[in-house]
Parts: sequence; structure tokens; C-alpha cells
Amino acid sequence: MTLKGRSLVTIDDLTTGEIGAVFSAADEMAAAIGEQSKLCKGKIMASLFFEPSTRTRLSFEAAMYRLGGNVITAVDIGATSLAKGESLSDMARIVGSYADIIVIRHPWEGAAKVVADYAGVPVINAGDGGHQHPTQTLLDLYTIRKERKTIKGLKIALWGDLKYGRTIHSLVFALAKFGANILFCPTPGLEVPEHILQKLVTEYGGEIEKCKPAKQTGEEKVFPLDAIYTTPTSSHQLAMMPDVNLSLDLGKGVDAIYVTRPQKERFEASESELTNQYQVVDKKLLKGKEFRSTLVMHPLPRVDELAYDLDTDPRSQYFKQAAYGVPVRMAILALLSGAKPVPVPENETTEVKVAFTVYNRDSGLKCSNPKCVSIQKTELKYLRPEFKIVNREPLTLRCVYCEHGFEPKYIASTEWHEGKVINKKYHPSDSHWARTIKPENLIIFASAADAEAQGFKPNHYMGGKH
Amino acid sequence: MTLKGRSLVTIDDLTTGEIGAVFSAADEMAAAIGEQSKLCKGKIMASLFFEPSTRTRLSFEAAMYRLGGNVITAVDIGATSLAKGESLSDMARIVGSYADIIVIRHPWEGAAKVVADYAGVPVINAGDGGHQHPTQTLLDLYTIRKERKTIKGLKIALWGDLKYGRTIHSLVFALAKFGANILFCPTPGLEVPEHILQKLVTEYGGEIEKCKPAKQTGEEKVFPLDAIYTTPTSSHQLAMMPDVNLSLDLGKGVDAIYVTRPQKERFEASESELTNQYQVVDKKLLKGKEFRSTLVMHPLPRVDELAYDLDTDPRSQYFKQAAYGVPVRMAILALLSGAKPVPVPENETTEVKVAFTVYNRDSGLKCSNPKCVSIQKTELKYLRPEFKIVNREPLTLRCVYCEHGFEPKYIASTEWHEGKVINKKYHPSDSHWARTIKPENLIIFASAADAEAQGFKPNHYMGGKH
Amino acid sequence: MTLKGRSLVTIDDLTTGEIGAVFSAADEMAAAIGEQSKLCKGKIMASLFFEPSTRTRLSFEAAMYRLGGNVITAVDIGATSLAKGESLSDMARIVGSYADIIVIRHPWEGAAKVVADYAGVPVINAGDGGHQHPTQTLLDLYTIRKERKTIKGLKIALWGDLKYGRTIHSLVFALAKFGANILFCPTPGLEVPEHILQKLVTEYGGEIEKCKPAKQTGEEKVFPLDAIYTTPTSSHQLAMMPDVNLSLDLGKGVDAIYVTRPQKERFEASESELTNQYQVVDKKLLKGKEFRSTLVMHPLPRVDELAYDLDTDPRSQYFKQAAYGVPVRMAILALLSGAKPVPVPENETTEVKVAFTVYNRDSGLKCSNPKCVSIQKTELKYLRPEFKIVNREPLTLRCVYCEHGFEPKYIASTEWHEGKVINKKYHPSDSHWARTIKPENLIIFASAADAEAQGFKPNHYMGGKH
Repeated sequence: MTLKGRSLVTIDDLTTGEIGAVFSAADEMAAAIGEQSKLCKGKIMASLFFEPSTRTRLSFEAAMYRLGGNVITAVDIGATSLAKGESLSDMARIVGSYADIIVIRHPWEGAAKVVADYAGVPVINAGDGGHQHPTQTLLDLYTIRKERKTIKGLKIALWGDLKYGRTIHSLVFALAKFGANILFCPTPGLEVPEHILQKLVTEYGGEIEKCKPAKQTGEEKVFPLDAIYTTPTSSHQLAMMPDVNLSLDLGKGVDAIYVTRPQKERFEASESELTNQYQVVDKKLLKGKEFRSTLVMHPLPRVDELAYDLDTDPRSQYFKQAAYGVPVRMAILALLSGAKPVPVPENETTEVKVAFTVYNRDSGLKCSNPKCVSIQKTELKYLRPEFKIVNREPLTLRCVYCEHGFEPKYIASTEWHEGKVINKKYHPSDSHWARTIKPENLIIFASAADAEAQGFKPNHYMGGKH
Repeated sequence: MTLKGRSLVTIDDLTTGEIGAVFSAADEMAAAIGEQSKLCKGKIMASLFFEPSTRTRLSFEAAMYRLGGNVITAVDIGATSLAKGESLSDMARIVGSYADIIVIRHPWEGAAKVVADYAGVPVINAGDGGHQHPTQTLLDLYTIRKERKTIKGLKIALWGDLKYGRTIHSLVFALAKFGANILFCPTPGLEVPEHILQKLVTEYGGEIEKCKPAKQTGEEKVFPLDAIYTTPTSSHQLAMMPDVNLSLDLGKGVDAIYVTRPQKERFEASESELTNQYQVVDKKLLKGKEFRSTLVMHPLPRVDELAYDLDTDPRSQYFKQAAYGVPVRMAILALLSGAKPVPVPENETTEVKVAFTVYNRDSGLKCSNPKCVSIQKTELKYLRPEFKIVNREPLTLRCVYCEHGFEPKYIASTEWHEGKVINKKYHPSDSHWARTIKPENLIIFASAADAEAQGFKPNHYMGGKH
Repeated sequence: MTLKGRSLVTIDDLTTGEIGAVFSAADEMAAAIGEQSKLCKGKIMASLFFEPSTRTRLSFEAAMYRLGGNVITAVDIGATSLAKGESLSDMARIVGSYADIIVIRHPWEGAAKVVADYAGVPVINAGDGGHQHPTQTLLDLYTIRKERKTIKGLKIALWGDLKYGRTIHSLVFALAKFGANILFCPTPGLEVPEHILQKLVTEYGGEIEKCKPAKQTGEEKVFPLDAIYTTPTSSHQLAMMPDVNLSLDLGKGVDAIYVTRPQKERFEASESELTNQYQVVDKKLLKGKEFRSTLVMHPLPRVDELAYDLDTDPRSQYFKQAAYGVPVRMAILALLSGAKPVPVPENETTEVKVAFTVYNRDSGLKCSNPKCVSIQKTELKYLRPEFKIVNREPLTLRCVYCEHGFEPKYIASTEWHEGKVINKKYHPSDSHWARTIKPENLIIFASAADAEAQGFKPNHYMGGKH
């Protein structure tokens, strides 16, 4: 097994075995942080931050320097070439000819994948919009594993803004991969996006149980559970329990509570008031016995959602998390750049990814996520939309860039119209005609108008439906 | 004596002996600047600039690279985490887990102390608002000592904006520490703050003589003396002389004139016109015999207050000052990081600092300086106001963060009300009651309203006074 | 021959032989890019970018790190010292005392010369307004030479914004120096400035042939030739050919087409619509046989002027160009810093520069280019305007800073008025009197008003002319 030359765009790019190898390397780094300065000697890391950040960037740069390498940095690039209209792919190719490895943060979802596709050198995603932040996830997992030895079977509560927090969106898949149970405790209105829950079920095989709103019984609602994810191997007793018994099971203890700040910078106008409902995590909230040995985690920076009275509490892990950022990133840099050979771990899981049909026909279909890299003006010049067909009923596509899912309403078939103009018909994607089309023959339209713009006529059976 | 692990927040953090050790190390650095690259090998300096700066930051970074170390830099951090509401203490803890030493510039006065309190690694203040800039002071002193061999007994004129120039606010204490006399020559309206003069007298034991305004006799007013500080060991003849004879003594020569630019960025609206009265220092001004061998100094950047016609004048030191910034900062970095052991200098002065009573009771008292770090919204969440009681008549507190002094108007005593509600009375701080309270029993209020808000009643003797 | 300690402000600072030496060094660097890390060990490069840039800066910084050196960087310095009113010369002196070599980009034309005049260390111009960008030119030439072995006799087409593109303004002189023919193909309204054509003729001795506008014959106007520069040694057959035959000769093939983006950030308000006429270079445009083996070049970033369909075309060189930036800049840094001795190349051309009379008399004459460094408020305090007299009929001056040419309208003679007030007369610069004045006696005025302000009277022969 080797990680040399590989990129890390989403947490799915690493198997559990590879993550284990990263952690072993991080252990080595942490044990003798001052003695790694030969590993990346002569290597250059490019640090491209299109969104303001200090913590993550400095952590990566410190990691590269600890490895003896050098760093070229561009921050707040909004004002430079990109403003001149340059595409991400041009930037990627050029910086890829200067540096040996690239770290990128960008507000567009899927941006890191584009850079990885064009750079010609390994690329590490340091946050792409609300999509993913896989190295944060690695250090989060590393922290949990340090304290609990294993991740399998743990109960991890995710707290706060689960809608826009990209650290959450990486973390859930990693937790699922390692067999943890996830308690979703969002601030109302900031629930985890449906496409993420769907992916958990479709690809990780666990189950999602939606919880009923807490009863208005006057009892303190300390734990605003919205949904529970249980792993396929779990006994399901947690998920199956009626809401009323949930507290009993939680009484056995929550292993970690992962708090996130409201990502106000990504809020839509209508969401600006949601922070009023943010429940602060403090000593008082965590006084129950189910929290007696709960790890209190936060990717930082915090604003008001995590109280300072926990700073000296032995349960608090957040400053440790931040500190682990350096050895974990050293490990990632060393492995991807090929500076360090990876020992094959014994507990390597053979992960079989679900193989979805890819849809990339030029039928005018575009990703519906306004923050997706694939629909930005500068990128449209060369990027071709591409989707995975992750479900047929209802027909559901997932963008390969930003991984947002959506359900297009109309379809046609390549078979029906090859040379036969009369059959150039389009159908509702939930019609019985739709089900009969082979995946490889699908033509998919975002709207009836799109279909008609391409010369398709409504199926006469559609009637008033379209 | 060791400086390893120590921080440099104000110039008072170093004794004269320790400053001497820094200078010896700087001499060594300057003598072989290319041969120091093993000293800080593998070490990382974090350079955190919350205010724009080029000169100071580049000087520190060049120094660290000359020592063989590495640098992680964040500039103009206004747009990043702090804007998301993060506190300085969180930032300090996190960056302290990435780097071996931190250099910080920040617009809030006292910010460097907060960072030093939480970082866990040595912190160097590179300017905190109008408070201090101790490494600038070290290179200023180093320049003077290079040219004059000693600082003791010299006459140093400070020129221009003495109100907002933080280099001035560090320099006066260093000059006093080494026994120099100080001639304050402010642009009218930009006099040195009272709390600084007070500290000079209280802690350095010298005397301040205020000068009468220059007579309107038609003679050229080359030297707008506002106040003179004479060291305790001086013969007092300078300070005691009536104004009319002052020029005779100055005729023996001013050793250095230290010019500063107007710090317009810190001016209040009402002060915007003050630069019109700024007197330019040029060859003409310095044609008198008292300036024959005066060192012309400036921390740079200059605007219009220092003429280019002095650039080639042998008296000019300002470009030399800037150049000394590198070896002096190399010395500081090497000593604080522990990279270089400090030889104990023979001329070590045993400095006895005045031990003031500390006041940090939670009586609603806050620092009155609007730029003080301790009253900022993000810092209020965890910072506890703390003051030194530097005088009793009038009662004068000095904030431990920004070192601004102020005179609170009302007090009470813990003895009077312990269990005795009837005695929960507050008094004017200049009343005879006030004088009888032991320092350790003092409760101090900013206003009568604050006192009453905490359940205290006015002393009936106060009458109309409160 | 040594380049140690030299600056690179314009491409004229290097002879063809020296450029050859740079290329040999670049070849060595490229052949073993990972083995150069001892060359600049311990050296510091300062990277001062007063204009946003990512590509050029990162390329220089990567180059310095590949050489084992270190980098101190200041970007977007608009907000810092300069905003406080500091001059370039002060900045240059100070940074020159921190670093061993300086790389500067600045919006003012001639800024790099000022920095080079004051820094005391070698300075490399990384772009000064619309003036020059000599290292870009070196990598452009290097790319051509790699592909064609020689530059002499090639036909190079320059395409797009030839008015504001500084890469163009450096490149034309380099091409002329090496004996290439230049085909100017500007977007209408963005023709190459007259002073550049003039310098080509005056100093490089070639000829400029202006082309007639393409006939409106309905035939596709693929190649909007505006002017042709032919080298002095060429047979002139290209330039002499009537327009109608031009295509025949071009049929032998254009060696390279050098496309530039519209430099919108330098456009005047009236020019904002010019990009509408920008002709896109794409596969279709280059389908003619004269382009069969044309090198397609672009300094990047591109916007819409160069189509993505050429990216995989074997003629395209632009990503290679960018990649060559690193070894070429490594070579320059190593040679100017003295880290690498320069072998004297055998084919060294003894270049005799034209020796022009210098005019720097204080007659109130200022450079007419509003972007010239010499007329900026902060620089006026110390800079003295200076011009080369590059022509007498009409009298033409070239600013030594920005190299813009202009034709002042009035003159006088120092001989005529020394002690003789009656002769303090000024004359139109195109009058017969003007021709009789020796260059060293010239007094030059921008306007009659300027002349009169200095006590000169109009020559009575002037009549209504002034």
C-alpha cells in the first residue's frame, strides 16, 4: 500500500486501514517532533487559501517546517489572478509546476477536486465551502482514538450547526466508516443536509432513525436529539428504542460531544436569527451522569457556543485537538509526498465502495448547488458536469464535485431517439416509462424547458403532469 | 540568569543587566551574521500581525531566518478567526501549540500580555496599540550605546508625537532605567501621557520638571521643551535651573534627538489638525552648536517630520537603527527561545521593583482606556480586570494590561460590611474615611451608580458630594 | 564577466551574452532541480509585492527555496507603511539592510529602478506598472530557445493588448536584441506605445513598417497586423513586401504567437469597451498552414483570449512557460546574488549602447507619464527628474525611470543668459534657434508658462506661435 502521489479531497479517499497508517505515522511524529526535519527536506508545499483562515493554514505550515520542507503561501487570493478571471484549473497546473504538494482552502464546494484533477501533484483539501475538511476529521478521530483506543461502537454527539459545518460533513463519514454511532443534535434549523444522511445509508449501510421532537413535559431538554445513525453491525437496540427510553441508553454515557460554531458566513439571509437558539455547552449542561466522561470537542474557533468554564475541565479536548493538528498533518504530508513509506497495517479493511453509474452526458443538466465549483463562470469554460446516479426511485443524482444530491424531474432515453425523431420524447422521472430505461441510456433534464430546448417533446401520456 | 522561556511584553520585563546581555549577544550576531544558522535550527517563530506592518515583521522574520529557524506568518488577521469572534487567549493557546516562540502586533493595548499569559511559549510584543514596542526600544538603545558607549547621564530629546508613539512609551522607561535625562519636546497637543510621567517618578525615582511655555520674545523657538526628566542620581542642576538658563546647559550638547511621526491612525477626531504644528527636523533646525554631535534618530517610517537633507549627514542614525533591528532581534529570539545561553554580565544592576498592592476584586470596575484589551467584547468572556494601586492620595490604579492610570471616585471596605448590612456604605475615594481602609480591604467603584448597583449606600457624611 | 551585485530592472540590463549565461545556468537548474539547495543557503530574498500577484511571487519564492535560501514576503503593501506616506527609497534602504536580494512588483513605472538605486543589494523587477517585467521575458525567451534552438531570424507575433502589457514591453527589446522579427497584432486601440517603437528603431537599429488596415475584401482577417519590426541584419524582404504579399511570406510560418490578456486594471475609462474587439486565439484561428508549427505562448493568467481547446494541442507552450519560471528565476537569483559564478559564454555580443546626453537640470520639467514613479508625491521629496535626450528633431526626451518619451515644446540656452538678463529668452523647441543650442547647454520647459515662471521671456520672433 502506498499513499505517495495520492490526493486527499474527501475523507472517503482513505480506507480505514490507510487512516490507521496515518495515525501510526502521527504517533511517530508526536513522539519526536524535533527529529523529523530530514523527511521533507528540499520539498515545497504550496498553501493556497482563498478563504481567510489562520489556524488551519499555520498548522499545515508548521507541519511542513517540522518536516524540514518549505512553504509558499498565498492568502486571500480573491484580489489577485482569480479576480482577473483565471480558472482554478490554470492555477492548479501552474502552482503544481512550482510545488511538490498543494494545500487548498476555497469557498466553492468541490474546488479541491478540481485542483487535484489538474495539479499533477498531491492536493490536500483544507476546506472547500461547506463540503469537507478531511484533515480536521483526521485530527478529530486521532483525538478520540487517543482517549478511547477505539472508535468502533462509540456514541458521538454532533452539536450545533450541522448544516454548514464542513468539519461535520467529513466527520460523519469517518465515524460511520469506523463503526461509531452518531447522535445528531442540531440547533433547530441547522440540521444535517438530507444528502449526507442519504449517503450514510446508501454507502455506509447503517440506519437513520429520526427522533420525535422532545416532549413539552417541562423537563429540561438538555439533549436536542434530531436523528440517530447506527452502524450496520450494531444491535440496533439504540435506534429501535422508543424515544422515551432513549435517556436510559444515553445514561450509559455519551463518548464525545462535538460542538461547532454557527457558520454565519454561509447562512442565508433567512437564517440569520438561528443563532439565537444556539444552546451553549457549558459545565451546567454537562452535569448529568451520561456526560461524566464525555470528551468535549470543538474544531475551533469558538464564539459563544462553548463556555470558557470548561477550559480547565479534564473532559475538554479542544486545545489538544488543535495541537494534534501538527503531527497529524505532518503524517499526511509525509505520506502523500512519498517522504515516508507506509507500513501496511494488519487491520486493513477491504472496503468495497458502491459502484454507481456515472452520468456526464451533455444534456444541459447542471448541479443545483449554487456554491458548487462546477457551475462557476470561470470553471464552466472547461468543466463538464458529472454525476453519480445514487438512486432510481426517486431518481437521485450526486454531483461528483460538491456531492450535493438532487432529484431531476425529467428524463429521456438515447435508444428512443437515435435516428427516430418521433421518439424524441421526455418523461417524468418518476413515471413507469422512466423505470424501463437502462442507466447507460439515460438522458436527464433539470426541467421540461431544458428538455424542449434540446428538441424533445413531452410524452403524450404526461398530460397535465409536466 | 537565564532568559529561556521568558516573554518580552514591556521593556520592564528586562533588567539593565539582561539588556546588557542582549546587547552582547547582538554584538556577536552582528559580527558574524552569516554564521548563526545553527542556533534556532528546527525552531518555528509565529509572526502574528493584527495591524499592518512591514518593517518590524520583516525584521523579525529576517532575524529568525538568519538564526536558521522557520517562520509561520499571519498578517492583517482582522478578516479571519478574530472576526469570527475568537478570543486572543484561544488564538494564543493554539498558536502556542504550533510554534516555539510568538511575535505579536495588535491594536489593543495589553494584547501582548494576554497572549503571553496563555500561549505557553515565549511571546514578544511587537507593538500593542499605543502601549509599548520593547524590541524597538532595544535597538534604539543599542544604537545610542554603539555611538556613545554608555547611556548613563546622556541628554536625550524626544520629538513630535509623544502621546501616541508607542516607541516613545517604551523608550522613556529604558532611558530612565539606564540613568539618562529626557527632554520632552512634543508637538503641542501631543504631550506624553500623564500616567507615563507618573510611572517615571513613582518607579524610577527621578524628577519631572515642567517647563514654562517659550517666551514670546521673537527669538527662534527651536526647541519646544515641555518637560524634563532627570535621574535620581543626577545633580539636579539641569532640572533646577530656571527656564532662562536652560539653553546654556543644553549648549553643552544634546546627545540624541529622537523624532517620531504623527501616529495619525490613533488620533481622535479633534486632533486631526495637530500635524499642522509639527516642526520639521532638518539641517537648519540642527545648525546650533548644541546639536553639533547630536545623534538624529527615528524609528521610521517617516513622513514629513524628518527632512531628506539629513540622510547623508553623519549625525543621522535612522537607517543604522533599522539595520541593527536584525542582530538585536536575533539576540532576543536566541535568548528567549533558549537557543543561546546568556552569560551573566558583571554590571548587573539589582533592580528592586516597587511592590504595589494588586486589586482584582469583582466590583464592576473596568479599565477606563477604550483601547485596553481587558474591556474588549471577545476578551470579557474570560479576562478578569486587574489593577495595581500605585497611589493612595489621590487613589490611583494602573491597569496591569495596558498600564493606563486612572483615579476611581468611590470606595468601600470589605471589613465594614461582612455580615453587617448596615455598614455597606461607599465613600468618596478622597474622603478621610477612605484613608483608613487597608489596601487589602478596598472595594473600588468607578461610579456611585456602580456602587449602588452592588447594594452599597452612600455614606451619610457625603452630603451633596456624590 | 560577473553578474554578482547587479540588479535586473529592465531587460536592457543584460547583454545577449549574459542572457545566454542565465540560460545555461537555468539548464543546469532544470536538469537537477532538487540538488541546488546549497547554492543560496543562508541567503534571504525579500519579496515585496505592492500589486496583487500570485504566480510571479510564488515562482520567485519557489526558486529561492529550491536554492536553499529563505524568503521574507510582504504583499498588498498598500495598507502598510507606504500608506503612512513612506517613500520607496526609505523602504528600499531598510529592506536592503534585512535581505540579500530584493524582488519588487509595484504599480508605479520606474519603481524598481528607484529601489535598485537605494537598496544597496541586487534588485529584481517583477513588474513595475506597464513598464517592464524582465524575468517574464527571460522565461519567454528561454521557452522559445528550447523549442527553436535560436531566436535569430524568427518571426514572433505579439497578440492582444500591446499597450499596457508590460511583458510585451520587455519582450520586444529582447527579441530585437537577439535578431528576431516582430509582428505586432494588437487589438485595435491597444497598439504598442509609440515610444517603444521609437526605442526599437533608435537603439536596436531595425526598421518599423506600419501595415495598412486589412482590406475589406470579405476574406477572413485572421491576422490583424498593425506593424512589423525587422532586424537590421534581415534582408528587409519581409518589411519591404507590399501588404498584399505579406501572407505569402507568413505562409513560411509564424514561429510563435504570444497572446496577452487585456490589462483591464490599467485601462482608462474610455478604453473599457476595447475588450469587445479582442479576437480569441483558438484552434480555429490557428488552422492555417502558417500556424502549423507555431508556438502558442501566453504569460498567463488568461481570461477569454486564449481558448481551452488549445490546452492539449502540441503547439501550446504556456504551461511549460510557467514551469520554466522556476529554473530561470533560480538562475537569476543565483547569478545576481553571487551564489554561482558565471562562465563567460563564447558567443558574447559586444553590445554598444547608444550614449545619449542626460538632461537633469532643475527647470521644472517633469515626466509626463502620470504613472511614473518620479512624479509621485512621496518620491518628489528626494527624486530629481532625469531624462535622456533621444532625439533633437523633434526634441524628444525619455524619462530614465519609466522610459516614456515625450516632446517638450520650449527650450532656452544656458549660454544666452549667463549674466545677460536681456537674453533670458525661450524658444519653440522646433525653431531654428533651438537647433543651434549645444545639448549640454539646453534648458527645457514643459510649457511657456513654466519658462515664464522661471523668468524667461518669449523670443520676439515667436510671434503668435507660443
